[in-house]
Amino acid sequence: MTSSEKGSSNNNAMSKPVEDFNAYRARMNERILEQDNLVIRRIFNIDTNAYREGALPVKTKELLGLVSSMVLRCDDCIRYHLIKCHENKITTEELFEVFAIANLVGGTIVIPHFRRAVEFWDALNEDEGT
Amino acid sequence: MTSSEKGSSNNNAMSKPVEDFNAYRARMNERILEQDNLVIRRIFNIDTNAYREGALPVKTKELLGLVSSMVLRCDDCIRYHLIKCHENKITTEELFEVFAIANLVGGTIVIPHFRRAVEFWDALNEDEGT
Amino acid sequence: MTSSEKGSSNNNAMSKPVEDFNAYRARMNERILEQDNLVIRRIFNIDTNAYREGALPVKTKELLGLVSSMVLRCDDCIRYHLIKCHENKITTEELFEVFAIANLVGGTIVIPHFRRAVEFWDALNEDEGT
Amino acid sequence: MTSSEKGSSNNNAMSKPVEDFNAYRARMNERILEQDNLVIRRIFNIDTNAYREGALPVKTKELLGLVSSMVLRCDDCIRYHLIKCHENKITTEELFEVFAIANLVGGTIVIPHFRRAVEFWDALNEDEGT
Amino acid sequence: MTSSEKGSSNNNAMSKPVEDFNAYRARMNERILEQDNLVIRRIFNIDTNAYREGALPVKTKELLGLVSSMVLRCDDCIRYHLIKCHENKITTEELFEVFAIANLVGGTIVIPHFRRAVEFWDALNEDEGT
Amino acid sequence: MTSSEKGSSNNNAMSKPVEDFNAYRARMNERILEQDNLVIRRIFNIDTNAYREGALPVKTKELLGLVSSMVLRCDDCIRYHLIKCHENKITTEELFEVFAIANLVGGTIVIPHFRRAVEFWDALNEDEGT
Repeated sequence: MTSSEKGSSNNNAMSKPVEDFNAYRARMNERILEQDNLVIRRIFNIDTNAYREGALPVKTKELLGLVSSMVLRCDDCIRYHLIKCHENKITTEELFEVFAIANLVGGTIVIPHFRRAVEFWDALNEDEGT
Repeated sequence: MTSSEKGSSNNNAMSKPVEDFNAYRARMNERILEQDNLVIRRIFNIDTNAYREGALPVKTKELLGLVSSMVLRCDDCIRYHLIKCHENKITTEELFEVFAIANLVGGTIVIPHFRRAVEFWDALNEDEGT
Repeated sequence: MTSSEKGSSNNNAMSKPVEDFNAYRARMNERILEQDNLVIRRIFNIDTNAYREGALPVKTKELLGLVSSMVLRCDDCIRYHLIKCHENKITTEELFEVFAIANLVGGTIVIPHFRRAVEFWDALNEDEGT
Repeated sequence: MTSSEKGSSNNNAMSKPVEDFNAYRARMNERILEQDNLVIRRIFNIDTNAYREGALPVKTKELLGLVSSMVLRCDDCIRYHLIKCHENKITTEELFEVFAIANLVGGTIVIPHFRRAVEFWDALNEDEGT
Repeated sequence: MTSSEKGSSNNNAMSKPVEDFNAYRARMNERILEQDNLVIRRIFNIDTNAYREGALPVKTKELLGLVSSMVLRCDDCIRYHLIKCHENKITTEELFEVFAIANLVGGTIVIPHFRRAVEFWDALNEDEGT
Repeated sequence: MTSSEKGSSNNNAMSKPVEDFNAYRARMNERILEQDNLVIRRIFNIDTNAYREGALPVKTKELLGLVSSMVLRCDDCIRYHLIKCHENKITTEELFEVFAIANLVGGTIVIPHFRRAVEFWDALNEDEGT
């Protein structure tokens, strides 16, 4: 269960899911890369490369990353791609068409992840509004 | 890790997992459906239909939904079907036979979800006792 | 791709999917158990126990095994449970309600397995008619 | 193992994977829909709707369906979306960028499905050349 | 999202992830086994047996359990095997080679679980240092 | 269903599963790499690196690759690692301890893949005997 599911009463830890997500991700990536395992370094490196502009535009690639994360049901991967989708000016209407395909192909088992994804997306848009 | 795993000392946020689950689910479903994506609306709609009385009784269908959620390892889906199983007067003994099949077919990787399911089931029965 | 997908012209290898399935399964189980690995022997043994009459009837348990196999998308597991469902006089109408839940929870990714399941189910019923 | 993996010597059964795939799919879908299960009918119906032109173009949606099928590792679903990608004039270069994301997100476990996907894609292009 | 992801400011609930994990696991296992379901009892029993010294040493078996838990993406299963790896004196360098294979075979979808695994591993080593 | 499941009467196509597997794999890898997609090239490259001698011996790493392939239920990946296990002189007794962990962690859904794995392993040993 995500931190955000616990209600919105606690406005300290709970009201900044995007910031918390980014901080934890950055801290642990740094910890992981300082270990100096060649295979892991390369996997992290390719990850940056695969979403670059190519025959397909960055925006399409981010949607591909998002839908993959949804059908494989990984909340943190979904959050990462939502941040990228937000940076790439994907609209909420476009996003829901990705969500629709994910829920259809992956089944209703995806719905709880879908709920958390929408909540995170709304948080991303609220942050922007501040 | 579920909120309930963090111990039972905090009797405010922790003692009402069923209520919290239902509130979050209702709130996010409303948010999702207000977006008006036809495919998503239809998936949500079918979901209500599939568990209705038919050639198979409602009780059997809820057990089918539960075992599917367990082998696919989705805590929130498990919780939803446990609530429905509780409403349909399924006994703890029957439930454990479903859990047994889920752990056997899905493997010991299901066990942590099984633990959380039992904890939620006990919370459902305690709520009733109040 | 299943053998049956390759058309029905070859009436030697193709026309007896049920028999072939059972023969291969029996032969390999025998080979596996002759190896005398205690953990494997016990897993095979529990498997027989879990589907016995208990608080839930055998028929319900077979449907639970079937729906689990479908959402986890294992053709041979589906076939095994279809044989058991057939032995337990489950009707085609009941079966399709299980398939409906499997396709809904597991998503359209389940459909190709659903097609092969229906084909095998029809073969089971044809064999009976002979 | 797909029929095409068994070598190319048999130029009867092996040389028309696309045609065989379509024939089996059409035949079994017809069989399934004649059963008249409402939930299943609706799932099949939504499936047609989800990939229609919307806020996102058809081409992008087909790529989303393809990448989902790859990370969930369903050969027949991959084949279906490859046919649709081919109809929508997706280039081999674009396709390989989708494959790259699928193999990266889904892991090397996807590679055998990737091999069969490339083989099917080449068959689609050969058919066209005839 | 794990409790530990919420930052390290709260030194009461957050600073003892290992202890909390063990306490919850022990409490729920006890609750589960008191239900007296034969199949479940046997599954729990086999679980203890499978990791015993055999043709393969305990250490190798724990690494097999760990890598399986990682590619199947079960945080609690990963934590359990990390505790066992720690007891069996596996080094951080060895562990990262297991993590590398898990991330490669299972894909980048494994990375969030990898982050949480490293965090838990560091907690295990800190506990020891106290 | 694998080609080998169709019985052993056809001593042309069926009696050389190892050779067929290797030929198809080599042919398709060559086809894939000629496409010159940088991300894919790198993934294939890392794959070779991850199983090299390191803090853990090659033999242990191959067992890790095998158990991962089994719990993720990919027949071709299992075959690949069985070939490598065979080259690294892993005994049948050791192998069955890996299979036991895979069937326990991954559940009985793994059993059909386990059957095909044993059949392929026996073929590997027979080839050697020739």
